[in-house]
Formats: sequence, structure tokens, C-alpha cells
Amino acid sequence: MAEKKAITARAQDYSQWYLDVIEAADLAETSIVRGCMVIKPHGYALWENVRDFLDRRFKETGHVNAYFPLFIPKSLLSREADHIKGFAKECAVVTHHRLIESPDGKGLIVDPTAKLDEELIIRPTSETIMYETYHKWVKSWRDLPLLINQWNNVVRWELRTRPFLRTTEFLWQEGHTVHATEAEAEAETMQMLGIYQELAEEYLAIPVVPGRKSESEKFAGALRTFTIEGLMQDGKALQSGTSHNLGQNFAKAFEVKFADKDGTVQYAWQTSWGLSTRIIGALIMSHSDDKGLVLPPRIAPTQVAIVPIFKTETQTAVLEFVSSITQTLKSAGIRVKLDDRDYETPGAKFNEWEKKGVPVRLEVGPRDMEAQTAVVVIRYSGEKRTVAVADLASELPKLLEQIQAELLSKARQFLQDNTTTVDSYEEFKQVLETKKGFLKALWCGDAACEEQIKEDTKATSRCLPFDSKPEVGADTEIEAQPQTGICFHCGKPATQRWLFAQAY
Amino acid sequence: MAEKKAITARAQDYSQWYLDVIEAADLAETSIVRGCMVIKPHGYALWENVRDFLDRRFKETGHVNAYFPLFIPKSLLSREADHIKGFAKECAVVTHHRLIESPDGKGLIVDPTAKLDEELIIRPTSETIMYETYHKWVKSWRDLPLLINQWNNVVRWELRTRPFLRTTEFLWQEGHTVHATEAEAEAETMQMLGIYQELAEEYLAIPVVPGRKSESEKFAGALRTFTIEGLMQDGKALQSGTSHNLGQNFAKAFEVKFADKDGTVQYAWQTSWGLSTRIIGALIMSHSDDKGLVLPPRIAPTQVAIVPIFKTETQTAVLEFVSSITQTLKSAGIRVKLDDRDYETPGAKFNEWEKKGVPVRLEVGPRDMEAQTAVVVIRYSGEKRTVAVADLASELPKLLEQIQAELLSKARQFLQDNTTTVDSYEEFKQVLETKKGFLKALWCGDAACEEQIKEDTKATSRCLPFDSKPEVGADTEIEAQPQTGICFHCGKPATQRWLFAQAY
Repeated sequence: MAEKKAITARAQDYSQWYLDVIEAADLAETSIVRGCMVIKPHGYALWENVRDFLDRRFKETGHVNAYFPLFIPKSLLSREADHIKGFAKECAVVTHHRLIESPDGKGLIVDPTAKLDEELIIRPTSETIMYETYHKWVKSWRDLPLLINQWNNVVRWELRTRPFLRTTEFLWQEGHTVHATEAEAEAETMQMLGIYQELAEEYLAIPVVPGRKSESEKFAGALRTFTIEGLMQDGKALQSGTSHNLGQNFAKAFEVKFADKDGTVQYAWQTSWGLSTRIIGALIMSHSDDKGLVLPPRIAPTQVAIVPIFKTETQTAVLEFVSSITQTLKSAGIRVKLDDRDYETPGAKFNEWEKKGVPVRLEVGPRDMEAQTAVVVIRYSGEKRTVAVADLASELPKLLEQIQAELLSKARQFLQDNTTTVDSYEEFKQVLETKKGFLKALWCGDAACEEQIKEDTKATSRCLPFDSKPEVGADTEIEAQPQTGICFHCGKPATQRWLFAQAY
Repeated sequence: MAEKKAITARAQDYSQWYLDVIEAADLAETSIVRGCMVIKPHGYALWENVRDFLDRRFKETGHVNAYFPLFIPKSLLSREADHIKGFAKECAVVTHHRLIESPDGKGLIVDPTAKLDEELIIRPTSETIMYETYHKWVKSWRDLPLLINQWNNVVRWELRTRPFLRTTEFLWQEGHTVHATEAEAEAETMQMLGIYQELAEEYLAIPVVPGRKSESEKFAGALRTFTIEGLMQDGKALQSGTSHNLGQNFAKAFEVKFADKDGTVQYAWQTSWGLSTRIIGALIMSHSDDKGLVLPPRIAPTQVAIVPIFKTETQTAVLEFVSSITQTLKSAGIRVKLDDRDYETPGAKFNEWEKKGVPVRLEVGPRDMEAQTAVVVIRYSGEKRTVAVADLASELPKLLEQIQAELLSKARQFLQDNTTTVDSYEEFKQVLETKKGFLKALWCGDAACEEQIKEDTKATSRCLPFDSKPEVGADTEIEAQPQTGICFHCGKPATQRWLFAQAY
């Protein structure tokens, strides 16, 4: 593989640091195709673990997987008005289905006679192609709820791309359910958002704020969109998963109707929810440092890397010793990797596993062998401790869980320290110029107001957090604020504190 | 869901029977997009099981997963001459990246100003896009072997499509490895073919003939292609998985080179191997009958369906009884489904599980409850037996394994009964007109000869089976044949028996 360069410090250039970590940790690289990345094995292993976590939870909550076509006929995508408005600008369009020899003999050209009658759009999301089918599947209350998910690739022609965070093609899951009542649809929307929050916090150690999106930020075609918002180390927010209550909007556009028990035919209530490879970007930015990637143990494809230290005369004995440790740890359910390459120095190996974010490294040399111990090095803190080999199988699982908890608690502290309650636009702008982070402000919710705030400050509303309490008049539950009851920006009536931030 | 129609008998119309089974078993349906199917939850669950089996075996043999772009720039796809010749006619081409309002206000049109500088082809397979990257990844012997697989969707614009067997878009895995020597590449090619054979025979109960493809039938750009060929109930062959030794063809086109231990820079040796949703078509056609799908227990998403039989006054007691059985069987590791719907009759449920191919059905009513027994019905044979409830957890796993073995042995017998050794073209044509199946004939291997046979009879060479022994002169190991030493069709020299058949 090519020589690796040094990682730019976060303080120097956060944006370059992000790209450097991805390269150093072998997660992904840009491809020859504009805006598309190659997800390398180490990056893909992270996605596989995310997928397995979610897939298990989806199935536990009664969902099944299916697969719908990559292509959406143009007329079908246009059927729901708001929806097509939201996606028309980013559509990759298939117009032909054959290549032929160029008449001048200089290679291949698109065969003009193989033009499609109707252009096909590569799915930017699958509401339309799925609901055209749901129209046929849903006839009676017996067919409900319909709880379907799919794992696939989608394409949105983005102008500015960035590995994992925004790529022309990306991988994701999209769940699409149909229910008999609005209440059921709302409960489903919230349940799936809860699973996303569980993934973020319990598995990836990324604390998030769950809440409702503003009218401007909601999904094109949805009644209500809910989100989990994470806060990256540079003080910018990252929307990490969204769950939409679609109401009856698509049901009306696609005639998804059912006969109730009493025979009344009515429009169904629908939801959709998606989480993409973007979450890997959030994972990278939440925990990593200037030495490279830092992975929480639960998601880490390799939890413990063992680096044997030997010279020619001790090689056989040390390798035998570490092989036996490897087996013991594997039997204890730890994902362990023995790095027995004999053409790399231990120093180079330490460095490599550090850059790749492996939570724990074991160093074992002849002296450790004699003492029946191993040196345990914790990636995120750099802490070293000596542990008896006999205790490794019982100690390491505890250590890994402790690291997991510490990373979450560290990230929670960061989120808390970087959430500022502001009560004037002045204060709002000042915080954005200095520490950034989440800003909590009484806001009117108006789209035009939001647009102006965005123009001035690049900040947008992230969500109305679920725990945001109304703050009006005598009923206010927190200390009286100078501006209680009015929007921090435009002065219109406002009763609740929304979360704002500059965002990825 | 829509009313289900009766399944056409195989003897009446095999082709329609296949479509009817897919519909009756809820596996897939055609979509609004020409040649693309919707894989329904039951069909997708089969693919998930295939994927899990293969993914486990790939990882056990040292492979890792990655993800490469959906799009291939036209010039890149054209880089290997044979390869592009093989795929040019079937390419879905992306030419634009935006839709805009039509000037006449009548909906959306493709924005003529958003034309791509270079057309992008939706991958029909990923050799070119991957090896352009491998060129950067492979520098030294230390980087070898490179053992990468990807699970993705590919598009080949087919004229005639058929669910699972041939669809415009299909799901598959494609493995792409790089090796230092030809011998290693050949060993990898054979190892992966072996895993496909293991999947087919051990997991899907589909006996296959492994062998080498003829020059006309090999993969576009490969040195040698190996295949596993199954035989369907109508006597037609189905190519079920292929593994290619690419030699240095692509390495030369994409400059995939490495420095050996002694510093010599040389072209690498490559392999690729793929297996697609087509295997589900093979699964359907291998075991199913006029009543619907028949699934071997190992692949079956549901292995045992429990149908309680009750009236209003016995409902509570019977449901309690079967719930407890369900729990016991789940604990015994059986994939069991309790069908407790109270708006369907037991008869309708029997019918539904039969059509869906569930290997074993349990019928439990008040009298069974009193006797502490259950009626066990075997899907493929229709056999019924009464088993004590206390014995179910120990008996059913044995029964499922027995069914698995019987289905394989039944299919093996069919393959054997329908493989005919022929020694003249006359005989060849006669067999194809009557019983069809596999034909074993001494053949020259010539492409022009194969073309003519195909024109006359619609049959093609399927493979040179690995167990085909040379049959020349005095060394012949089987009975002397009238035509030993010459091709059954053109009379040119021929030393080995190839397998021919009409094929899907």
C-alpha cells in the first residue's frame, strides 16, 4: 500500500484532520467517479456492525426486509408534489441502455437508437417506487401494519461531497411502514427514532438530542420529521438519523387505502425512516484524536490487537505464547487480532493500530512471557497497565465495557459544555463566532425567519428537543428569561426553546 | 392482499408454473420498471440466508467486504477489450444529473444543461472500477493476497427477463482477489467454486456438476471460467455460480503490479467470482411441486408452522397450549412460526404454509391437546404422523435434517436419471427432443462448432466436468465408444466428454 502521511492536528485544520484520519485508518478513499467513495474493508466493517445492530433491532420490533428497484420512472417520482420538489435538483438520470462502436472507430458511444421511452431516475429514496406497490398490497385492515425495511444504495447528485458525510452514492436502510391510524404511525415513527438513539448512544457512544424538525428542515413530503442530532468536536451538529410521520400525503398520491373492519375504505397512515453511512462520519468525529481514529469497543471490528515483541532467537517462543493468549481471548468472546507480521517493527505496528482506533493493544515480549504478564495500552487515554496473563480473559471484557462507558460520558460532557442557552440574536451570533456548539433559543418556528438566520450565521434549527418545555408567562418552569414569550430573532410569539447550530 | 389464483400444473406449462409458484409463495413480483422485480419479504429472507451462509464462509477463508461505486465511467469500462465487448449491449447509461420544470409547465424534464462530461455506466460487474483502485493498493508482495468481496446490485439491460433467473437489476456478491502467482490464483478460483458447490448441495439441496466453461461460454476477459451447473425439473440446466481465473488480462489493462521479495516488478494474477439472486430461481425449480414452493429446512426462513385448531370455546386453551409448544421449539433452535390469526380457517392456513414451502406443519386441536400430541405434516411428501408433544423438541430437528437429506438425494437421483451419454449428433438431438437433461458427449471445444450446435438445438456446452476423464485409444477408462477420439458433431479430434444442455 502507499506510504502514509502524518495526520493534521485538529486545532490546525479540523476539516483536513477528518480526511487524514479516514486515510490513516484505512476507512475510505475518493474514487474516480465524482463524489463517490470507495469504502475500504476497515470502513465497511464498521458499516456491517451498524447494519447488524439495526437489523437485529428492526426484526425484534416486527419488521421484515425486502428489495425494490434501483430505478424510478420520472413520472412516478413526480407524483407527490413536495417530494419531487425536494429531489429534482439531485437526480441521476438514465436515458439510454446500450453502447455501440463509434462510427469513426474511436471507441464506444451511447447508441442513439437505444433511448428509453421514459427516463429512469436512480432512487434518491424509495417512497414513490415502494408506495406504487403498497397500493396493490394494502387492501384490508388484515394487511396492516405493513412493516418493511430495505438495505440499499441511493444516489443524490450533491455539489459538495465529503467522505461518509455527503457522497453522491451512499448506503443506508430505509424503513417504510403503513398503519391504520395516525396514532399508530406516530408511535412507529417514535419507536424507530428511539432505536436510532439506542444505536448512537449505546453502541457508538455518541450522545444525541432527539427532537422534531422545523417546517423548513422536514423531509420533502412528510407531515412531521423527527431527528437525532449529534455534536461534533468542532462544535458543528450532525443529523444522524431521521424518522418521518408521512401522514396521509403519500397515501393520497399513491392511493394506499384499506377497508376497515366495518368496511369503510380509508387512506392509510405511513412512516419512513432512514440511517446511512453518514453515521460513520459522526463516529469518526465524536471520539478520534490527533493520533487517528478512536473506536468505542462495541462497534470496533477488532477490540484488542496483540503485538508480540521478539528478536530472531525469541520469535518462536513469543509467537507461541501470544497465539495461546489469542485463543483464550477469542474463547472469551473478544474480537482479537494477533499481529504476527515479521516484516514490520513493533513500533510501526503500535502506530498502525493506534491510527486504526483499536480500543486496546497488548504488548508481549520475552520479559512479559517470563513474568506471565502483558502490557495493556488503552487507545483513547494512552494509559498503560500490566496485567497477569491469567487475568486477561476476565479483565479485558470489563475494561472494554469501561472504555465504552467512559467514551460516552466524555462525549456527553462535551455536548453539555457546548450547549448554550441564549436569549438574544446578539448573544446567538457571539456564541457562533466563539465556541459554536448547540444554541438553545426561544424561536417562532417560521420558515422565513429561519432562512434569514441561516443567511446571517450559517446556523439552522436542528430540532425542537423532546424535553423542551413551554416557557410562557407564570407557568414557566425555568428561571424567567428577559425575552420569555417572543422569538430571539424576529420578535414574533415563541413558546419553546429550539436547538440551533451550524451543521454538516 | 389480492386474491390468490390456482397454480398451473408443471406438466401443463412449466414456465407458467414457475411464475405461479413465485406468486403463490409471495417471493417476488414484477415492478413498474421494465425487467426489474420487487423482492418481497419471503423471497428476500431466502436471499438473506444465502448471503449469511456465503458471507460466513468467505470470512472463514480470509476474505473481507468492501464497497465500490455503482457508476463506472465509460472510458474505464472500455479499458479491457474482451470485457467491454461482452457488456456494451446491456449498459444502463446515466447522461444527466438534474430535472427541471418543463418550459410548458407540464411537469419535469431532464435539464439539458446538466449533461455529464462523460457518461456513467451502472455497473454490470465491478472488475474495471475495482481494478482501477487495486492499481493503487497493490505495490508490494506484502499487499498480497488481496481478498475482497462486495455485496451489491448490478444492472444488465436484458431483453427477456424472468423473476430471479434474469432481471435487469439483480443482487449478488462479487469477489475480486489478487495474487502473486498463477497457481495461487487458480487455487483461489477453485476454492470459491467449492464454496458455491457447498452452498448449493449442503444448504440448498441442489446437486450440481462443477467444471470448466468452454471458450465461448467463459467470462468476458477471463483466462478460464469455472461453473456449477444445476439441472431443473424441466430438463434445462441452470448455471448457478461462476468463478474466474482472470490470469493477467486485467492486471495488464489496469497496471496491477507488485514488487516481489527480490524487487522484481511483475503483473499480478487475479480472480473474480459471483453468485446472484438467480440461485433462488434454482432453489424454486429444484424442489417445488404443483402445490407450490418446497424449501429444504436449512434455508427455510420458517422451518415449522404451527396451526392451532379451535372453536370459540376452546380458543384460549388451545392457543395457550400451542404457545408453550412454540416456546419449547424456539428454545430448541427451530425457526418456528405460530399462526394464531383468528380470521383465517385452519384449511386456509394449511394451504398458505404449503404454498410457501414451509418444511413441516404442526396441527394441534383440542383432541391433540388432551392426548398431549401434535400432528406433524411433511411438506414435500405429504406424510402425516402423530408425535407426543414431549418428544417434539428432540424429534423435529432430526426430522428436519432427514428432510434435508431426502430432498438432496431425490434431486441427485433426478440429475443422474436425466444425464445421458450420447455418441452421435443424431442421438444428441433425439434426447433433446424427448427427455432433455444433461448430455455427455465427446466434443472438440471449438467455438464455431458450439455455435452451430446451439443454432440447431438451442443446447450449449455447460462445462467440462472435473471428473471427465480423457477417452483416447487404448487408455480409455470407460467402455469403448463408436466415436472415441472424435467430436460428436464436427468430427474433429476430441478427447473428453463435455456436458451439454438447453439452459436458462
